[in-house]
Amino acid sequence: MAYLRENMDREYLRSLSYEELDVLCSEIREMIINTTAKNGGHLAANLGVVELTVALFRVLDLPADKLLWDVGHQCYTHKILSGRMKDMQSLRKSGGISGFPRQWESAYDLTNGGHSSTAAGLALGMAAARDLAGENYKVCCVVGDGAMTGGPVYECMNNTEATKGGFLMILNDNEMSISENVGSLARVLDKVRMSRGYSVRKRKLKGFLNKTEKGQGVLNALGTFKDRVKYFIHPQIHYFEEMGFACLGPVDGHNIRALEKMITKGLELAEPVLLHVHTKKGKGCDFAEKNPEKYHGIGAFDAKTGVSLDHSQGYSEVVAQTLENLAEAHENVAVICPSTPVGCGLLNFREKHPERFFDTGIAESHAVTFASGMALSGMTPVVCMYSAFLPRAYDMLAYEAVLNGAHVVFCMDRSGLVGGDGETHQGIYDLAFLLSVPHLAVLSPASFEELRQMLRYAVEEHTSTIVVRFPKGRDSGLSLPAFSFGKAHVLMRGHNITLVAEGAMVPLALEVAAQLGEHWGLSAEVIHLGTLKPYDRETIETSLRKTGFLVTLENHAQIGGVGQMIASDFSSYGKSLCIGYPDEWIPHGSEKELNETYRMTAQALSEKIQKAYEGRKNG
Amino acid sequence: MAYLRENMDREYLRSLSYEELDVLCSEIREMIINTTAKNGGHLAANLGVVELTVALFRVLDLPADKLLWDVGHQCYTHKILSGRMKDMQSLRKSGGISGFPRQWESAYDLTNGGHSSTAAGLALGMAAARDLAGENYKVCCVVGDGAMTGGPVYECMNNTEATKGGFLMILNDNEMSISENVGSLARVLDKVRMSRGYSVRKRKLKGFLNKTEKGQGVLNALGTFKDRVKYFIHPQIHYFEEMGFACLGPVDGHNIRALEKMITKGLELAEPVLLHVHTKKGKGCDFAEKNPEKYHGIGAFDAKTGVSLDHSQGYSEVVAQTLENLAEAHENVAVICPSTPVGCGLLNFREKHPERFFDTGIAESHAVTFASGMALSGMTPVVCMYSAFLPRAYDMLAYEAVLNGAHVVFCMDRSGLVGGDGETHQGIYDLAFLLSVPHLAVLSPASFEELRQMLRYAVEEHTSTIVVRFPKGRDSGLSLPAFSFGKAHVLMRGHNITLVAEGAMVPLALEVAAQLGEHWGLSAEVIHLGTLKPYDRETIETSLRKTGFLVTLENHAQIGGVGQMIASDFSSYGKSLCIGYPDEWIPHGSEKELNETYRMTAQALSEKIQKAYEGRKNG
Repeated sequence: MAYLRENMDREYLRSLSYEELDVLCSEIREMIINTTAKNGGHLAANLGVVELTVALFRVLDLPADKLLWDVGHQCYTHKILSGRMKDMQSLRKSGGISGFPRQWESAYDLTNGGHSSTAAGLALGMAAARDLAGENYKVCCVVGDGAMTGGPVYECMNNTEATKGGFLMILNDNEMSISENVGSLARVLDKVRMSRGYSVRKRKLKGFLNKTEKGQGVLNALGTFKDRVKYFIHPQIHYFEEMGFACLGPVDGHNIRALEKMITKGLELAEPVLLHVHTKKGKGCDFAEKNPEKYHGIGAFDAKTGVSLDHSQGYSEVVAQTLENLAEAHENVAVICPSTPVGCGLLNFREKHPERFFDTGIAESHAVTFASGMALSGMTPVVCMYSAFLPRAYDMLAYEAVLNGAHVVFCMDRSGLVGGDGETHQGIYDLAFLLSVPHLAVLSPASFEELRQMLRYAVEEHTSTIVVRFPKGRDSGLSLPAFSFGKAHVLMRGHNITLVAEGAMVPLALEVAAQLGEHWGLSAEVIHLGTLKPYDRETIETSLRKTGFLVTLENHAQIGGVGQMIASDFSSYGKSLCIGYPDEWIPHGSEKELNETYRMTAQALSEKIQKAYEGRKNG
Repeated sequence: MAYLRENMDREYLRSLSYEELDVLCSEIREMIINTTAKNGGHLAANLGVVELTVALFRVLDLPADKLLWDVGHQCYTHKILSGRMKDMQSLRKSGGISGFPRQWESAYDLTNGGHSSTAAGLALGMAAARDLAGENYKVCCVVGDGAMTGGPVYECMNNTEATKGGFLMILNDNEMSISENVGSLARVLDKVRMSRGYSVRKRKLKGFLNKTEKGQGVLNALGTFKDRVKYFIHPQIHYFEEMGFACLGPVDGHNIRALEKMITKGLELAEPVLLHVHTKKGKGCDFAEKNPEKYHGIGAFDAKTGVSLDHSQGYSEVVAQTLENLAEAHENVAVICPSTPVGCGLLNFREKHPERFFDTGIAESHAVTFASGMALSGMTPVVCMYSAFLPRAYDMLAYEAVLNGAHVVFCMDRSGLVGGDGETHQGIYDLAFLLSVPHLAVLSPASFEELRQMLRYAVEEHTSTIVVRFPKGRDSGLSLPAFSFGKAHVLMRGHNITLVAEGAMVPLALEVAAQLGEHWGLSAEVIHLGTLKPYDRETIETSLRKTGFLVTLENHAQIGGVGQMIASDFSSYGKSLCIGYPDEWIPHGSEKELNETYRMTAQALSEKIQKAYEGRKNG
């Protein structure tokens, strides 16, 4: 490596020529490709912002100035430049550095981000705080064009008067969100990129109108010419200017010299500034440039060919296949997915049923409201999104779907632990807010086949809002009794302990039961819940009459989980044990390692249950 | 009444002349004023849309066509015209009709709304469903300019390509949201209203440029003239047109003839259409026109003078006064309130500390993100919002505030039952999603004085995110021990039952304890929790060692409440009883009547607890 080194402070970066910087950028790209090939990660987005990050680190005085990355998945160059080059090998691994900014890693990381469309609001808050304190550091955020489809960005743009001193919002326009970009804003940006040079035509019109007396009269009648002529020539800019931004660009996002010039200009203006930067997602890596949607977030792959190293089928694919069948059987089935058709395995569905597939962009709130409107007009919409992003639409789920009696089916992907993405992506809080919504039904399958049955039930038989939560993992291979709404299944008979498990925890519960028998001679009755709400009280009570000791095990945080709800209903049986993830943020790492850390293994759990069983009479 | 009658179908409305319709509108206004004076309600917004509603009911074929009111608080004329004139006297009363659309009242009410900024998304979903089904009914929604500041509207506008057949979005521009309108969008609308006639100037410019050869050359060079000249003259329109809407208006919202013409035109276009209607909030009622902010949502008042009939101080006022003191003592304290400064009692604060008061508009998500940014830059922001609207910002609270370690203080107003507004406004679900957020602190005061102490603690001593939940009610008058973070207080000693209560339920718990002693000779130890998370295990355990029987009582839904969390921690003591609101939507009605319905009275609860106590050993 010619220029890549551990310490790359501003002084060092400024000492390099633009030619040398280009070599540095190639070296950074190589490191990003090799790291994500081994550890998985967000390849394409990171390759797109190498030059932009270098330019920002040369212009800004970091960390005194404030630099925020929206979502944060594009922070690899940021990490490399801020003293974490050597840590890159541990990216996304247990105990290693995160794929997102993390405050505890570096003073350069201002947040512990991971969700979209909030960096602008954070930047505005920082700028307002700076103004009130009479300080003068610079605040800058980088927001992708995909994130711009999220309502929180608009709410922020509507509030720019909150800062007197301004901040710089860089619109990183790579013509993609996570998936191919959609919607009205994408059309606006398209037009800006397509336009043939702005300054020349502006001069041409102005010169012409000024030449004649009548022309000047027109100009006067029209009010502030300097603003209006701009919109006349380049109306797309207007969108942002009306929202209170001075607009700069578009500028080539892979030309460091040009970027620096515009960033410097943007920081000089004491007002909110939008700098439109045009980048290429996947830049410098053939296969990622060609298919940035696939290489947005990816598991381990071959660094040379890009071929994925994991070909096993996941829950998402099972959902997608089942939905294709359901859409063929029923004309009124439609799928709504806020920007994650790849992650949710829906590319085939999108191709087969384009007229019934709606990608709303990164807009979870709208996705659910839109689906509710469809349901109220006779469709059966299926909303596919991740558990970790459903909080964005919690209000709409409760009040636009459930309270309106709308038959919307939620396929809630990536419930439970998610692996490499960490704190912001763990799907272990959904039951806490879902179970308290009156009349909402919640299902959780323990095998691929059960998931298929649940989906068919949810679409074909249920008549109000229903959520199917399922994990990221692979098939349990369990052979289960046929799914029946509201009915729990006893998978293993026992007389000492009633062990109620949901979803991905069912196979673990069976292992635990085996160990309890083997090591302590305790006989556990394993109940697979299937329907979490309304849940099957009778089956649990029948078992408890025998055993008198309730244990619940769920792929969810312990607080607010289904266990507490059940345990409080059956408190008359005495001591119970609710097992779920502890009350702390769960970092990234492999599911296996995390479950060892949190003692969610058959051995640790069987020991814990045995102790609780022994102590059940003593308090 | 000359023209007001129970059956006012389209045929009847069309039979009246415009002069007669004006009289009808006066009669409707009189009914609205008299009804809200007695029952409370949303006066100003309803007075603003009388003519608009009449015009819509004359043009649309309801309920075959679809009419949606955003939020829904402006639906009184809609209810009167759709056969509920006689029911108006029961508006917002227990067992009476709701102040919002309700599906079970009428086929004209398509939703059970109450939250803002979702009607556009619902309408788009309905339009898309209609297109797919090959039907041709019209879809129309009415959205206030205040609601337009909400991100969900923007997310919808970004997705208009989802309908081929279009829908009509009426922008009801009354220059107000709930409070005085704020932000960039308000400035855009101001400019549109101020502009001096659009068509004349357009013709003037077009004629001028066409006259000369050079002028035509300029036009050709500029591309599509007919679009661009529009923006040149009237750039504000552009904002909506870029988002995919054909734009009509502005039109006088109190001129039925003009409204009909524009609505008819808007419905004819087979594309998304935005019709800008200019109305006056409070129209036809002196005091409401003069102070629409005060008369947005109001309790009973004198119909002639507008003087409010209730002058008692509520929790909101105590919060506001305490925040004023804190802001005077600490330069870094700021208040952020998404559009409810009146409801939150913050008008004085806004006046005294304008530079540290931020009304974000109806934009809960951004309010919390903005506050987090401020906190990360050294301010101590206090976010004031209602419990019922916090779900809109749940994701930001968890991931932008808590996970970032931001010291943001939430004053969560109107927790518990809220009275006249019903299902969508009940603040009884907040703990379900708050308690599972790691490291979040949650407080709940049982008196005004304790609320003051908690706020001072939250602002001056706590260093991370903290929520103070408080009800709508009046002071309990309880004399409580000094607040100490994480410490529960035993308010009454007892040896049979440990009765743990939070917030507004503490006075009721004391009554229940008295009745338990009086009627059944049972001695209850009453514990006031104060800090719900992290809660005081020791105090509860010490009590349970004595009594062995745990009862929890909270101003919250039973599922997901603090009771289940505590009960599962102390299950070794055997049967417990978690009391909260049942798992169903709680309608409008007085708090007293609702608590009788749900058996949350001292008598009903003491009976229930006594029975559970007797049966505690039998299961």
